[in-house]
Amino acid sequence: MLKKGQHGGNIFKAAEALGCEASEIIDFSSNINNYRPDLDVTIAAHTFSHYGDPDYKDLKRAVASRYEVKNKEIALFNGASSAIFELFRHLKAEETTLYTPIYSEYTRAAGLFSQKSTRIDRFDELYKKPDKGSTVVFVNPSTPDGRYYDLEKLFRLWKRQQCTIILDESFLEFTRQPSLRAEIKEYKRLYIIQSFTKFYGCAGLRVGAIFSHAKNIRALLQPAWNLSSLDAAYVTALLENETHSRDSIALYQKQYKALRKTLKASGCFEKVYKSSGNYILTHSEQATEIYRQLFQEKILVRDCSNFDGLDARYLRFALKDKTALKALKKALHHACT
Amino acid sequence: MLKKGQHGGNIFKAAEALGCEASEIIDFSSNINNYRPDLDVTIAAHTFSHYGDPDYKDLKRAVASRYEVKNKEIALFNGASSAIFELFRHLKAEETTLYTPIYSEYTRAAGLFSQKSTRIDRFDELYKKPDKGSTVVFVNPSTPDGRYYDLEKLFRLWKRQQCTIILDESFLEFTRQPSLRAEIKEYKRLYIIQSFTKFYGCAGLRVGAIFSHAKNIRALLQPAWNLSSLDAAYVTALLENETHSRDSIALYQKQYKALRKTLKASGCFEKVYKSSGNYILTHSEQATEIYRQLFQEKILVRDCSNFDGLDARYLRFALKDKTALKALKKALHHACT
Repeated sequence: MLKKGQHGGNIFKAAEALGCEASEIIDFSSNINNYRPDLDVTIAAHTFSHYGDPDYKDLKRAVASRYEVKNKEIALFNGASSAIFELFRHLKAEETTLYTPIYSEYTRAAGLFSQKSTRIDRFDELYKKPDKGSTVVFVNPSTPDGRYYDLEKLFRLWKRQQCTIILDESFLEFTRQPSLRAEIKEYKRLYIIQSFTKFYGCAGLRVGAIFSHAKNIRALLQPAWNLSSLDAAYVTALLENETHSRDSIALYQKQYKALRKTLKASGCFEKVYKSSGNYILTHSEQATEIYRQLFQEKILVRDCSNFDGLDARYLRFALKDKTALKALKKALHHACT
Repeated sequence: MLKKGQHGGNIFKAAEALGCEASEIIDFSSNINNYRPDLDVTIAAHTFSHYGDPDYKDLKRAVASRYEVKNKEIALFNGASSAIFELFRHLKAEETTLYTPIYSEYTRAAGLFSQKSTRIDRFDELYKKPDKGSTVVFVNPSTPDGRYYDLEKLFRLWKRQQCTIILDESFLEFTRQPSLRAEIKEYKRLYIIQSFTKFYGCAGLRVGAIFSHAKNIRALLQPAWNLSSLDAAYVTALLENETHSRDSIALYQKQYKALRKTLKASGCFEKVYKSSGNYILTHSEQATEIYRQLFQEKILVRDCSNFDGLDARYLRFALKDKTALKALKKALHHACT
């Protein structure tokens, strides 16, 4: 059986454990936008035979225009993980305050580069005062529960406490809510992390960014040519695509309703969380059994035990299409009756 | 004018300085294989919409088969630079011995992660004994001069001194000479660095590797999904292409002769080095003037002042096609008469 508590999306390991092809696995574990634009890209070998633009000007221009920031307020990295690790390495925070549950990526980065890590439980003590001058880390909408937070009150609290703020908004575009990016000019201790592979549906590519005050951006270590030219070209095309956002959100809303209905109707879970992301968290004392049963039926879901603050009773389901949902419904029926 | 002493290949900065399009720049500065296989890539969005195989099994299999090593003797990184920095971070060498001239990348990595860096000049003191237990760094064929070294005697010396060996063989395939990879099983302190974007002609992609004893490979930090799926797929296809190597070398040999003839006949240089790589080093007291003149004619060459051990009197020319060579010939004529 698959080792639990891993990153979602490893359909290859799952297939190995089950003795089947990776393509047979129905993957509810990775929360990638399901909307696929009609945008196959043909890339002639000569376009990446030479070194590309080391500053990725085309991509930066597309990012700047889409997110309403200046070029000099953007740092690009090969994946949000690289962005996170570089930011923590750069900040060398004395104290990091993690709002949990949170990605294990943030826990690891804080463990490596911070002298001390403390936690504030989002569910129970949201407005607890972080220590003065500490570096707070918040994901909005959060994962794995998908709750969207209006950050006005928290932002005031953080500023009063002179906190450095790391805010991950990788799933914000699903919500159509305003970003805190508008504040980077004013509050110089604010860093926004953005993955471009979730909302833009290209998990296999490596493109992420940090938005911050131009002075902060200049201080970050951004190695020349740290992105693949192929990845940069593809993400640029998506950012410039005018219907991608609208069509993605329409599909997301439809699939969200369908998944939530299926999960609630199954009777498997004590709690099905409301979510503003493209994934839904569940809680059940039987979660380990449910996970196993689904796995036997080649359905992979995200066990949340490696989220700081959660355990194996929490499972996260990504949105999927009708066919996948039908298979899930059947498997949940087997698991819970 | 372009700031000198930079990495080659930045035709974008050069174009900006000259007020022209990047495509107008004739780039003799980046030493990328000029052979272009008939292998354009069409990428359907769905192929990288999900997370790829985090272990890159297909790519590893292709690398293992081409380079005659086992999967467990390979670590993959998004670019040779990442491989170099991770290796130095991991080794935390007390003393690094750099065989100069050498890439500035190695000097930087040693500066960041080694307690002490010493130098051995390849030209003047090749067989000087490195300190016992130090980490030696050697590039073969070397850059920017392109000399190929039969390492038998040096390898014996290094082993006697119980050195950890970092050997960069990124250009070895142009020489058809045997690799020291055959020794990784026997000598456990040997690490071979390989960039896949030079010989495989895809500078815009990010794929590099470390070959070493399986035990060493396990100890390296290899983040899951650190490569772009697109890059992995393209390099896999090239590695599996049976004629790529043969056709590349044939083209390289032809272009090498032509470039060497042009450089020698120009009368611009006191010395034109013999090279086993796809680039040729020159030495001239007038190099700064020559660089400037070529630059005015939109020809970019590699100023070698940022190679540890060289200065601005050294220029490196990459192999190029007939049209580019004709332009170079003309520009050199203007520069030196």
